[in-house]
Amino acid sequence: MKAINLIEKYNSFHDYWNPRVVTELNGQQLKLVKVKGELIWHKHELEDELFYVIKGELKICLEDSEVIIKEGELFTVPKGVEHKPIAKNECWLILFEPSGTKHTGDQHCEQTVSTFKWV
Amino acid sequence: MKAINLIEKYNSFHDYWNPRVVTELNGQQLKLVKVKGELIWHKHELEDELFYVIKGELKICLEDSEVIIKEGELFTVPKGVEHKPIAKNECWLILFEPSGTKHTGDQHCEQTVSTFKWV
Repeated sequence: MKAINLIEKYNSFHDYWNPRVVTELNGQQLKLVKVKGELIWHKHELEDELFYVIKGELKICLEDSEVIIKEGELFTVPKGVEHKPIAKNECWLILFEPSGTKHTGDQHCEQTVSTFKWV
Repeated sequence: MKAINLIEKYNSFHDYWNPRVVTELNGQQLKLVKVKGELIWHKHELEDELFYVIKGELKICLEDSEVIIKEGELFTVPKGVEHKPIAKNECWLILFEPSGTKHTGDQHCEQTVSTFKWV
């Protein structure tokens, strides 16, 4: 029984758009991910998805607007809402979503991950 | 549609052991709470509970051990596990748990909150 140090976890991997699970609770997973560049437009039909920026800045494009999430800020994308995350520079995120949530939702692209490793 | 700045939210309240909801997703709530001192021993029969320390340090006493959670660290208390959170000095936490989770679990004390405000 030991606390999880997030910075140590982030320092243990270096690839982008490849979320790692750090803890699981109530059917939800908390994942860490480093991102840079763009992900495909997608949506999750059944799952709300929380983005919490630990380092850097993330832009999430929505159908008719965009949201800038700076360090120490978070935003929840409601289920069914098309979104496209973009990070101009390296950005460290916490994701919180149901355990079965697919990485790129209803879309498949080269960044799609089929199973998530634990870190 | 705007990101939520956590420090701004923390700066908007000053009482201890009174969690505020900042976002709700997938039947779960993310709550902010400032703590200092001790909470009663309690457990949640059905809910795992995540503690993430944003500022300060939290000790969680468990039946046969204790966990120290420092700034930037998190720990999940599994459902059914008796625990007692203690903060020697002021500590800022994120809690993540199902929306219906009672503050002091199966116990009631002067710190028990019946409904959680949003912040």
